[in-house]
Amino acid sequence: MTNRDRIAGILTPNLTPVDGLGRVDEDRLRGYVDWLIEQGVDGLYPNGSTGEFIRFTAEERRRIVQIVVDQVRGRVPVLAGAAEANARETIAACDAYGAMGVHAVAIVAPYYYRLSPEGVYAYFREIADTVTVDVTLYNIPLFASPIDVETVRRLAFDCPRVIGIKDSSGDLPNMMRMIAAIRPQRPDFSFLTGWDAALVPMLVAGADGGTNATSGVVPELTGAIYQAVQEKRIDDAIELQYQLLPLFDAMISTGEFPEGFRAGARARGWEMGSGRQPTSKSQQANLANSQAEIQRLVAQVTGGMPSRPEDADPISEIVQRVLQQLG
Amino acid sequence: MTNRDRIAGILTPNLTPVDGLGRVDEDRLRGYVDWLIEQGVDGLYPNGSTGEFIRFTAEERRRIVQIVVDQVRGRVPVLAGAAEANARETIAACDAYGAMGVHAVAIVAPYYYRLSPEGVYAYFREIADTVTVDVTLYNIPLFASPIDVETVRRLAFDCPRVIGIKDSSGDLPNMMRMIAAIRPQRPDFSFLTGWDAALVPMLVAGADGGTNATSGVVPELTGAIYQAVQEKRIDDAIELQYQLLPLFDAMISTGEFPEGFRAGARARGWEMGSGRQPTSKSQQANLANSQAEIQRLVAQVTGGMPSRPEDADPISEIVQRVLQQLG
Amino acid sequence: MTNRDRIAGILTPNLTPVDGLGRVDEDRLRGYVDWLIEQGVDGLYPNGSTGEFIRFTAEERRRIVQIVVDQVRGRVPVLAGAAEANARETIAACDAYGAMGVHAVAIVAPYYYRLSPEGVYAYFREIADTVTVDVTLYNIPLFASPIDVETVRRLAFDCPRVIGIKDSSGDLPNMMRMIAAIRPQRPDFSFLTGWDAALVPMLVAGADGGTNATSGVVPELTGAIYQAVQEKRIDDAIELQYQLLPLFDAMISTGEFPEGFRAGARARGWEMGSGRQPTSKSQQANLANSQAEIQRLVAQVTGGMPSRPEDADPISEIVQRVLQQLG
Amino acid sequence: MTNRDRIAGILTPNLTPVDGLGRVDEDRLRGYVDWLIEQGVDGLYPNGSTGEFIRFTAEERRRIVQIVVDQVRGRVPVLAGAAEANARETIAACDAYGAMGVHAVAIVAPYYYRLSPEGVYAYFREIADTVTVDVTLYNIPLFASPIDVETVRRLAFDCPRVIGIKDSSGDLPNMMRMIAAIRPQRPDFSFLTGWDAALVPMLVAGADGGTNATSGVVPELTGAIYQAVQEKRIDDAIELQYQLLPLFDAMISTGEFPEGFRAGARARGWEMGSGRQPTSKSQQANLANSQAEIQRLVAQVTGGMPSRPEDADPISEIVQRVLQQLG
Repeated sequence: MTNRDRIAGILTPNLTPVDGLGRVDEDRLRGYVDWLIEQGVDGLYPNGSTGEFIRFTAEERRRIVQIVVDQVRGRVPVLAGAAEANARETIAACDAYGAMGVHAVAIVAPYYYRLSPEGVYAYFREIADTVTVDVTLYNIPLFASPIDVETVRRLAFDCPRVIGIKDSSGDLPNMMRMIAAIRPQRPDFSFLTGWDAALVPMLVAGADGGTNATSGVVPELTGAIYQAVQEKRIDDAIELQYQLLPLFDAMISTGEFPEGFRAGARARGWEMGSGRQPTSKSQQANLANSQAEIQRLVAQVTGGMPSRPEDADPISEIVQRVLQQLG
Repeated sequence: MTNRDRIAGILTPNLTPVDGLGRVDEDRLRGYVDWLIEQGVDGLYPNGSTGEFIRFTAEERRRIVQIVVDQVRGRVPVLAGAAEANARETIAACDAYGAMGVHAVAIVAPYYYRLSPEGVYAYFREIADTVTVDVTLYNIPLFASPIDVETVRRLAFDCPRVIGIKDSSGDLPNMMRMIAAIRPQRPDFSFLTGWDAALVPMLVAGADGGTNATSGVVPELTGAIYQAVQEKRIDDAIELQYQLLPLFDAMISTGEFPEGFRAGARARGWEMGSGRQPTSKSQQANLANSQAEIQRLVAQVTGGMPSRPEDADPISEIVQRVLQQLG
Repeated sequence: MTNRDRIAGILTPNLTPVDGLGRVDEDRLRGYVDWLIEQGVDGLYPNGSTGEFIRFTAEERRRIVQIVVDQVRGRVPVLAGAAEANARETIAACDAYGAMGVHAVAIVAPYYYRLSPEGVYAYFREIADTVTVDVTLYNIPLFASPIDVETVRRLAFDCPRVIGIKDSSGDLPNMMRMIAAIRPQRPDFSFLTGWDAALVPMLVAGADGGTNATSGVVPELTGAIYQAVQEKRIDDAIELQYQLLPLFDAMISTGEFPEGFRAGARARGWEMGSGRQPTSKSQQANLANSQAEIQRLVAQVTGGMPSRPEDADPISEIVQRVLQQLG
Repeated sequence: MTNRDRIAGILTPNLTPVDGLGRVDEDRLRGYVDWLIEQGVDGLYPNGSTGEFIRFTAEERRRIVQIVVDQVRGRVPVLAGAAEANARETIAACDAYGAMGVHAVAIVAPYYYRLSPEGVYAYFREIADTVTVDVTLYNIPLFASPIDVETVRRLAFDCPRVIGIKDSSGDLPNMMRMIAAIRPQRPDFSFLTGWDAALVPMLVAGADGGTNATSGVVPELTGAIYQAVQEKRIDDAIELQYQLLPLFDAMISTGEFPEGFRAGARARGWEMGSGRQPTSKSQQANLANSQAEIQRLVAQVTGGMPSRPEDADPISEIVQRVLQQLG
């Protein structure tokens, strides 16, 4: 296996639209998936943190993956979040998603309890030794048990089914330590970053791509960043990162996560519903204020076009505009 | 309503026994519930952190509560952990548990995502305004979004259904701040501590009781502690706390939580099965070593009797033994 | 040696008054020391965190201790903060303070760098093996390298010169772990708490006393607390603790530490000057607002008398007032 | 003023050699300064964290700066660490260093106490409004009060004397936020990173250089990194960063900081003495073990030459070797 096979590029951990009754809005989800693919994202990642997997039931999570796989129709790989209540339920979900045709599953480390590295290893090992689908690890120490470098290395060497890691820690030297420890023996192992604020540095340091919530709002921009790094236009890439950062900061600090990203999608014309986490009156007022600011930032990056897949070449257009501004 | 109605005493957040196939072991659970009540615990708390609620499915959680309520037969109050994937599911579980006859439900703050105080308030507010059963808040900042003093105060004043808090932070001054802020207006509001290492100081400071994992292992000792504080025998209570602390420390630091408490229960003759979190070979070896040490500490506290409900008066016996030792 | 010799009671880590030119105000310091002793404090602790040792020069620190020792004239023990730039300078300060006649020195663990337990041990070991004065350890993990239980135990057993610890962590179970580990072999070893918010629980758990910044503002109240615990009037003690807590909270959260305690002393008629840490206009405005609130809280506790050593028996008066209020 | 005037490149926060009696070893310091300049470092930074400023007395700190300035003789700029006990002492040190001819001083935020952003602002503002030398801020949140982005912005805009920041947080997005907030209005303001593990990403993101402890051990390598980024050879730069990382990791995790860097200097033939922090027997044994590993890593990077300023062009040689290895 060669590095050709690695998962790479920018995958979108997509928001999950709900309707007025709080149910998964299938039509909206299908439309959004189409739009993302048309905008050039390199993959879909349903049931991630951005997709609020934990706020849906086990049945809903399966339906979400089914809809996404069905709508994608093989145009891009699907990486399906598969964490369930325990190892056995997670294994069952993995196999179900494998049968649906996902490229791989992504499994967050156990959350609520904070497990030791040995416990994290044992959890992933049991899953990886049993499932019939490829697995990517998902490290998000802010929300779940951390997966340290040594544990990633052990899993990469002991488990052929483990083919990559999505790391949302934002710890750049740690990304380099993982790449240095694993890539020589596992050239097929994929390193993806989930911390959009450091996307360019991570790619420059050797990451294969990212699963970035901002790509669900400004897929042209994250796509342009990836393309610039691929083409060794590092100065361009950094300039684009400087465009992405304030938008990311605004969205991540708005209300409860992922409320700010819902506001971002709304700015592109995608109404995702009001979310399942109850909000107080004062939160709703704050959110309304933030909406305007996010709208402004999105417009600044995209040129104000809410949702225009027909644009000839949005990426090069953005690069032009950025370069003009920064002259 | 007077303070007579407050939930008080030591409630056991009970372990959930599973059989060799990993299924809830109903017979064992019934036997364990009987034993705990015979040992004098003041209530049961199924589906707490010690009960590993998050590692069971929604259906299993309901069955666990059903079994406990059925077996308890009103002898002591049942406080049922009711957190589910989202507010709507949690409300449904609350109402189901209410219909089963629980005294109240306990709801942990949203976990995985870390919510702001306003988000925590909105979540509990929506639930408390809807359910048909009394609610206790469950604050465990190590694992879930923290519930700060001001949020507890707002919920206590705005929501008649919210009748207490279980606080596992171990922050004693914060417990006092909560009591000072709430008790004058809500004399019926119950303050329970979940941090066994500070049980006596919390009771001395005015807490009504505790939901303590150690009470599932040495219910005589936690009962003796509560009784001593009630009878103003503070020196006795502190001496007993000095007995409890090393056992608590040993159990909390053994393997992944609540593995050490399973070892403690095993030392009393209650085999709870091997848990749902996979364990590595090295973890299993460590656990075997810890078992002996926990066994020794349990025997030291209980006089070596694994499981003897027929003991005439275990509490005063323990007090005697402790006092002799510390003479 | 018996426990009679232990440092005990409430020692005041005194503020350091400065004049309009920022110099140590000797006359004010002498007057304040007299007042504190008249109010019944059990010892003085110059050059603690409250005394802002780190904002004075090495020469100033020596002069501060000299003034305090001279003014105290043996009426109460003096515990002199002796931390300097490195082990050698600290040893020289210790010996100088010993020659001045202090009861013991207190040495904070190395700060700025965070040392390992082994490094903390080596630092204190070298000092304790060299100095000609008794040493108390000062654990304040918020500001300096933590001194863990095992390190305290090793130092207590290896170093006869180490005769106690002031612990400002506020971690009550840890205080109990230290007492359990050390007291049997070192009955002369003193355990003092520096976390006023948990003073009563710490004393109830076996601590010998406290070095509490609030005792520099309301020495009658902290004295009454200590007396109540000594006399086993735990309910009284807790009621007094409920009086102390909001005042402590207000002072600790006002401006930069120890600005709020300066405000408290001001409320008692002791103007300590404006401190050496520069303050912005907005900070000064906030401080003025807080002054009124602190004044109110101090008056509530003391009955509004700013500085009246001639009061016949302030302690029993306070206890009466508190009991009336809480009826 | 234009960006030409910015402090840039790799400055060495130099270790402070001491002799067998623990005194500053002037001859060794002079020789080390010469070697560093010959190896191409772009500046010296005495009395930084690596130089253990806090473990020397005020008099020693002045002498250290005097020696360095004297030995440098204007060949490279000197950035002198100037933090003292309080604002007044710090101002005096700043002016003394200015008179000695340093390019600028570097002032760490207040440590021990953790100040609020407003307190940090007031501290630097008072200093910057008074001194007669240029000032760089030093942000090292691990050891001292953090200087947040907004505070840096305010100081940059309000204080012409503040001409840069050394940021050792390692937070790459934060570096970008600072650059975006300040550079447009203050093109002369310099951004230096102190977190060697992310040197290349920081430079790529727009930082002007670094003050890096590793440059005191492998100045050829850090110089090669800086040169590669300047010449837009990003792939080369990243490959060199992959060489630097394990050496940095080994030195930072050896004993108490900066013991591992002393071991690194020793590997280059520079014996810095045994440091002022006492070490236990077990620490000394560990250090001896680490010395061999650090020696191996240094040799791997430098080709085994301990201290060879006469090398024609060490930088391009290293680049060649790295490229061969990674071919």
